Parts: sequence; C-alpha cells; structure tokens
Amino acid sequence: MDYQVDLNCDMGESFGAYTMGNDEQILDLITSANVACGFHAGDPSVMKKTVRMAMEKGVGIGAHPGTPDLAGFGRRAMAISAEEAYDLTMYQIGALDAFIRSEGGVMQHVKPHGALYNMAAKDALLSDAVAEAVYAVNPELILFGLSGSELIRAGEKIGLRTASEVFSDRTYQPNGSLTNRREPNALITDPETAGAQVVRMVKEGKVKTVDQTDFKLRADTVCIHGDGVTALEFARRLKALLPEEGVKVEKIGSRFS
Amino acid sequence: MDYQVDLNCDMGESFGAYTMGNDEQILDLITSANVACGFHAGDPSVMKKTVRMAMEKGVGIGAHPGTPDLAGFGRRAMAISAEEAYDLTMYQIGALDAFIRSEGGVMQHVKPHGALYNMAAKDALLSDAVAEAVYAVNPELILFGLSGSELIRAGEKIGLRTASEVFSDRTYQPNGSLTNRREPNALITDPETAGAQVVRMVKEGKVKTVDQTDFKLRADTVCIHGDGVTALEFARRLKALLPEEGVKVEKIGSRFS
Amino acid sequence: MDYQVDLNCDMGESFGAYTMGNDEQILDLITSANVACGFHAGDPSVMKKTVRMAMEKGVGIGAHPGTPDLAGFGRRAMAISAEEAYDLTMYQIGALDAFIRSEGGVMQHVKPHGALYNMAAKDALLSDAVAEAVYAVNPELILFGLSGSELIRAGEKIGLRTASEVFSDRTYQPNGSLTNRREPNALITDPETAGAQVVRMVKEGKVKTVDQTDFKLRADTVCIHGDGVTALEFARRLKALLPEEGVKVEKIGSRFS
Amino acid sequence: MDYQVDLNCDMGESFGAYTMGNDEQILDLITSANVACGFHAGDPSVMKKTVRMAMEKGVGIGAHPGTPDLAGFGRRAMAISAEEAYDLTMYQIGALDAFIRSEGGVMQHVKPHGALYNMAAKDALLSDAVAEAVYAVNPELILFGLSGSELIRAGEKIGLRTASEVFSDRTYQPNGSLTNRREPNALITDPETAGAQVVRMVKEGKVKTVDQTDFKLRADTVCIHGDGVTALEFARRLKALLPEEGVKVEKIGSRFS
Repeated sequence: MDYQVDLNCDMGESFGAYTMGNDEQILDLITSANVACGFHAGDPSVMKKTVRMAMEKGVGIGAHPGTPDLAGFGRRAMAISAEEAYDLTMYQIGALDAFIRSEGGVMQHVKPHGALYNMAAKDALLSDAVAEAVYAVNPELILFGLSGSELIRAGEKIGLRTASEVFSDRTYQPNGSLTNRREPNALITDPETAGAQVVRMVKEGKVKTVDQTDFKLRADTVCIHGDGVTALEFARRLKALLPEEGVKVEKIGSRFS
Repeated sequence: MDYQVDLNCDMGESFGAYTMGNDEQILDLITSANVACGFHAGDPSVMKKTVRMAMEKGVGIGAHPGTPDLAGFGRRAMAISAEEAYDLTMYQIGALDAFIRSEGGVMQHVKPHGALYNMAAKDALLSDAVAEAVYAVNPELILFGLSGSELIRAGEKIGLRTASEVFSDRTYQPNGSLTNRREPNALITDPETAGAQVVRMVKEGKVKTVDQTDFKLRADTVCIHGDGVTALEFARRLKALLPEEGVKVEKIGSRFS
Repeated sequence: MDYQVDLNCDMGESFGAYTMGNDEQILDLITSANVACGFHAGDPSVMKKTVRMAMEKGVGIGAHPGTPDLAGFGRRAMAISAEEAYDLTMYQIGALDAFIRSEGGVMQHVKPHGALYNMAAKDALLSDAVAEAVYAVNPELILFGLSGSELIRAGEKIGLRTASEVFSDRTYQPNGSLTNRREPNALITDPETAGAQVVRMVKEGKVKTVDQTDFKLRADTVCIHGDGVTALEFARRLKALLPEEGVKVEKIGSRFS
Repeated sequence: MDYQVDLNCDMGESFGAYTMGNDEQILDLITSANVACGFHAGDPSVMKKTVRMAMEKGVGIGAHPGTPDLAGFGRRAMAISAEEAYDLTMYQIGALDAFIRSEGGVMQHVKPHGALYNMAAKDALLSDAVAEAVYAVNPELILFGLSGSELIRAGEKIGLRTASEVFSDRTYQPNGSLTNRREPNALITDPETAGAQVVRMVKEGKVKTVDQTDFKLRADTVCIHGDGVTALEFARRLKALLPEEGVKVEKIGSRFS
C-alpha cells in the first residue's frame, strides 16, 4: 500500500475511584495512545496500568499533558503563560516517561490535551513553548498537533518530527479549522461519510469544508474518540475501511523510523 | 582526609505565589539538594528554577517525592498502599528527571519526604515499594533514608546504593530512632553539641543517646534544615567544623563514583 | 407501626467529567441523602444538582464531609489533627448548606465519610472535634455515626441529636465493630439474610455476630450502598421488606420533629 | 463629616504550611476584610483564624471567592461557564459563612478575587451569575465590584446593595478602566498623589485619567494591598489623611444599616 495513517486515542483518563473510557477495547483498534499525565486526568496508578496495557498490545505511547484543571477535565481555556506551558508540559512528559522506561518501553510522541491543544493551535508563543519543552526532554519525540496549526509549525521550526492530526467525525471550516461543537453541523454522525473524509484526507490531502470548497491539509494521524458504544463502532469501521482503500494503518513511530 | 560526609537539604518547596525557604543561600552550604516534586510542595516552575540553581552551584540533585497532601505539606501519615507508594514515587522521580535531563544534568539521588520518609522507615512493604520504584526508573540512583531504617534495608536488598542519613539537631533514642519532636529534649539547640554529634557519628559510627548509652549507626549524609536564620547559622557552623575535624564535605555521588 | 428506621445513602460523588453512582434511582429508595462536599468527592455543580434532586423527592439532606483526599476518595486514613477535623467539617457543612438554603431547604444531618467516619468512630478527640463543628454551625443538625461508636458518644455529649447507623450487608464482630472487608465473611450477599439482620436490629436492638453471640445495638438508620445493580436490588428488597415487618421507613428528621 | 468610605483588603491567603500577607497588622487599618475561601488561596484552618481575628477587631467580613486555581493564585483568566461561576461562588460563600456563624458573626459582603473579579467586571453573563449566587444565599449581602463594572450593574439589577470599588495606587484610563499593570504608568507610587486621588474620588466622584481628562465614578470602598512594607505605609497614610479631609472611614455595612 502506498498510503499510511496512524490512529490515536486519548486514554488513561480514569482518576482514583473514578473510571472513564474503554481503554482496553480501544487499544485493539488504535496504533497510538495518548496517556493522560495527572493534570487534567489520570493518576500515577492509572498511568502505570495504561502504559502496561499499551505495551502489551504494541501500541505507540505518548504523553497527553493538560492544564492543571482536573475539575474542568482540562477543557477550559486558561491564561497560562508560555513559560508555564513549557514547565507543565515538561513535568508531565517526565512523569509518564518514568513509567514507560521502567517497563522497558520508549515514549513515541506528545499530544497536548483539550484547552492546551486548542490554545497552542492558535497561539504562537504557547506552541513554541510546548515544542521547546518536548524537544528539550527528548528531540526524538513526535509532536502531535492539529493539521495546519501553530503547534505543527512550532514543532517543525525547532526540529521535531510532527504528526498532523485530522478528525473523522468533525466538519471543517473553509479556513481549515474545526467547526465549533456548538454549531449544528459540527459533527459527522454517518460512519460512511466519516470514513470517506479520512480516506480523502490521507490519499488526496484535501477535505471538503462546510461550504463545499476543498481545503488542503496533511493527515498523519486520525483522532479516535474513546467514549461510548458509537465511538467504538466508528473506530472499528474506520480500521476496516482504510486497508480496503489502500491505506495502511500503522503507528506513527514505525513510519518515521 | 580519611572521612567524608554529604550535607543535604530539602528545597524547591515554594508553590505558585507562595514562597518557602532560602534555597539560594542554602545551596552554598550543602552538597545535595532534595527537590520537591509537586505533591507535598513545589510546582513545575519552581522545580525548573531549583534544578537550574543547583546545577549552577554544582550541588547533587535528588527527587524528594511526597504524599499527595499539599494542604498538610506531606507531613501527615496517610494509609497509602505499597502499590500507591511505588506509583507516586515513580511519577515524581520522572517529573523532576525531565527538568534535570533537559538542563543537561543527571539525577543523583532520591529522598522521600516527611510522612513518606517516616512511614517507609518503619514499614517494610512501603520501603520495598519505594526502593523498587527508584530501582525501576534508574538503578544508578542513590536512595537516602534514615540510618538503620527499613528504607536503607530495602535499598540494599534491591541493589541500590544507599545513603544513611543522620541529624545534627535531633537527639536519638536508645534504639536509634529520633526522639519525638513533642518531647522536651528532642532538639539540640547548641551548635557545638550538634557539631560534635555529627563528627562522632561520621568518624566513630556512634551517637550518644538520651540515656547516655552509645548507639552504632552509619552516617553518609547529614540533614540540614533550610528554614530560619538559626538553621543557616547551624549549617554554616557545621560546614566549617567538619573539615577542621578531618571530615571532607562532599556530595554523595562523588563518593560513590 | 411501632418501629421506624431511616435509610441513608452517600451521593453527589461525581466530580467534573467523572460520573459515579445512580443517584437519581437511589433517591427513590432512601429517606436521607449524604451529599459529598468537594473534598473526597463532589464539586459545586454536582452538589447543586444533587440538592435539587433530593429536595424534589422529599429526601432529607445531609452533609457528607470527607478528608482532603480526592485521589483516594477519602478512604485512606490520614493523621489529621482534631483541629483540622473541626475546620474541614465546618467548611464542608457550610459549603453544602449554601446550596440547600438557596434552594429553600434545610439541612437535616451530617455524616462523615470514609476514613473520617472510621477514624472518628474510634478516636475520642477526632469525634469530639467533628461533633463540636456540627454543633457550632447548627445545633439542630442530626449527627450520623456508627452505632455504638465514639462519634455517637461525642454527639450526645455535646447535645446533638444522633442517628446510630447499622449495616445490612456487613457482618458484625462480637464487640460490635464491622468485620474487616478483607475477611472472607465480611459481606452478606444474600438479600434475605441482610433484610432479617436489619429487621432484628431495628425491632430487637440486637445483631447476631460472627461467633453467633448477640450484640446489643441501636439502629436508627441503615446505610444503603449506591453502586452497582446488586446494591439497587438490595435496597429495593429492604424497602419492601421493612413495612411488611412492621417497620416504618421514614426520614430521621421526621422522627425527631 | 459628610463623606465616608470603606477600606477593604484581601486576607486569609495563607495555605497549609505557606504564609502570605500581614493580616494581623492590616486588620488595624481597614474596615472590611475579604477572606479567601480555599479555591485560589486559604484553607479551613486559615479561614477560621482570619474570621476570629477580624471579629475581634470589629472589621466587616466578606467572602472572597476565586477560581479553582491554587497554582495560579486565582489570577489566570479561565473559561468557566456562567453556571460554574454561580456554583463556585455559592460554595465558597457557604464555606466561609459557616465559620462566621459559628463564631457568632454575620457576613457583610462578597468580593470576587483576581480573575473572577476581572472577568465578571466585563462579562455580563458571569457577573449576573455571581450576583445571583450572592443573592440566592443571602440577599442582605453587599456585593463589591470595580466601580462602573458589569458586576456592579448585575448586583443592582438583582436587588443587592453594592459597593463600588476604587484604587488608590492605580491609574485610570479615559474609559474608567484600570491601566494595565504592564504599562509603565500603571502604578501610583507617591503616597500623596494616591491619597489625593482617593479624596477626590470620594468627595467629587471624579478621577483624573492618564490623559488628564476627568472620569466620573462612584467610590464606596478603596482597595488596600496587604503585601510588603510599602503597602502598610500606604494604608496608614490613607487612613490618617481621609479624616483630615472630612472623609469618615467606616465599614460599608454600617453605612447601609
């Protein structure tokens, strides 16, 4: 096959007595796992278990650093400074890395979570800070960011390998941004439409936006959602469809090596 | 000189807008710094600054993991399981290590904080868990623990190098434990007495206990307190006295290498 | 009917994006709700929703203060001082009370959670501190505690009305304490046995302990567990059984008024 | 005297082992204390002590609710929803109120802290939510807000008494907003200039802005800063000057009653 793509999913988002997600099932469908690091979700015990599960299944492991906002699950924009972004990204990468190293593994990538991801997508100072933190800990790490975003630009600038992320179940605006979730047409609920969008993004480097124009974008990795029965079915459908369409599903780290 | 000893101090215990300690001044007096890792004290920004300061001054850097009890400064005993002790020790070592590595340094040691230190001193399961976490992250790390404690035993059992810690300003019980702080004779307030106690522990491997008997103990590193003007004077006196008595003050990592 | 008993259940234990329990269903089965107050579980938004639901269903509302240990769900014993117990109990009662008052309700009771409940059951200083905090905020509040425990004693001493709590699904030791959960015979899994135990505790003031002797105890309120399908069935069975046995199920506040 | 003004200061901002501010000294200079409630700063023990001190000195006590951002001291803007603002304001008012009531006092006012204050000053939805929470807990509470802000408007709309706050040591923009702290001319460092600004705001209802035009504003209460030796001197100077100028310094609650 001439084409390839990575499927990634957030996980390890349980906390203490609280359970979230279907990590074990999702791990069979994806190639890269973004593991929460204890700020927006996750705790040391959950991190250890998640790392072990991901390693058993041969899934690439990445840090999924978030804002210090457990109550808001890291989804609320917060006016953190660029230096704070650097510091908390580094802290969380290090914390997860200890579990990976102690299990004999190697961290593959870093994908910021929620508000940190969204803020870094648009803010050049924040995205530079995040990219610098990743590079300073380990220049071999792959930085995940929204395709076409400041975060991808920042990663490339500093010399990191990057993975441009696209979405199967979200519609795109003419400028390449995701349609706000509050808009009625933000979500794609038909698995066939979602699958076709991914195939076209990977093979043609284009997405049909909400006004029916084409937007060019790079698609290295697809974000898979881990919540709910529908999400699992969506992921299963996508994983089956891609090889049929000549797109190899492979973890991003293998592609670069 | 035939004798040598390490002087260690807790630091990096500021948090957000809150300042604690005289880290900059203390760093000139000690050879090993125990840096708080964000659970009982410290935050990512404080950790970065503290690591940079310690590296500039050539002081050995260690992780100072604590219980998840910021409100109690990690001093309140908590019924954490051995597995939780393993997990939170590993998490905190990793978090600090990212800052050290990104600055081009190498972590020297690990010293548990407060309640974690005290619980691990007596509880074999907890001390084994802490030692296993340290070893799993990096078997080259030196484990600090109360001289004669379960933590030292656990470190040796698993194959870590250990540093037996003694106190200059605390009195000892006949069984080698520290006199409880609530007892009237718990503290040594005279710098000469304190200095003489350290010199004897290092050179003769003995301490005079509260009932005037001798207790044998090993003294690799002395705990220096960082709070208050008195503590600084105490530390200055000790640092001057030791070489006069033929005891070289040297960071523990140099001794082992 | 000559006998009466209250059925209470912990609730409002969701937190941010994390959901826990079946509060809405459980509220139809119980007469008193112990609402988490943000330390071991719960958050301001969950508290408001829980108070509103409980008021709609006419269920008595109580504060369920816990230790500051979200990661451990307030279940880990912590060496808090009596003064800290007083302070954190008062804080949490006040926080919940604001939601109740603003909705036009009145707080009925206070039941400490997890480790705070267990520690206060045995420790006279802690139980006195908790009882003093409750009394100082509002002497009309009813204090829930393990039947026969220090907490009940402390409540009575200070002049609070108390509710002695018993368990339907736990076995009792000859001294009236609950069998440790780690013991094989700790749990009662047969609904008939559980129901019969409650009926006897309420009507005869006695429970058959694990060594088949009788232990005298007072039973004002029965703890209902909110997790799992089994718990719901257990609660339904109990609620149906009690009236058949001549025991009126009524909220504790009605009984005292 | 025909004029009167209240002097308020944030306090109770210590946390656990961390100390902040000179609360005891400041309490002798002010008439209203804004007590932190455990989200951005403060803890239950600090709250109790602060309430007791303020009551002894006859200072009006208010809740000082902040965002759940201890690491950022509640100063970082956070995208909380209006409902979250309502909930966390109510929670914190209630928590503090328990300490005040248990000591036999009455809460006088509510002043949001830092980012919550600044966001509510400009955002009508947030300010309405905060005002609604205050009103729902107790419609007798006085709501403090930046003079001319959305928060004052929201308080008046719902029927609360409000206190328009002005600053002695900050310069004003032509539109009545405070000059951003990052601007070189943001701060007034000369005590005479600061004092004169306050006197004119109170007596004439005007402030000279940075472009030398006058801006009309109401001045019910002056914000006093509690940090540093300079702040104390500033406050002492102001407290002496005002009566000389015919302005009575009196707690806001006395004025309304």
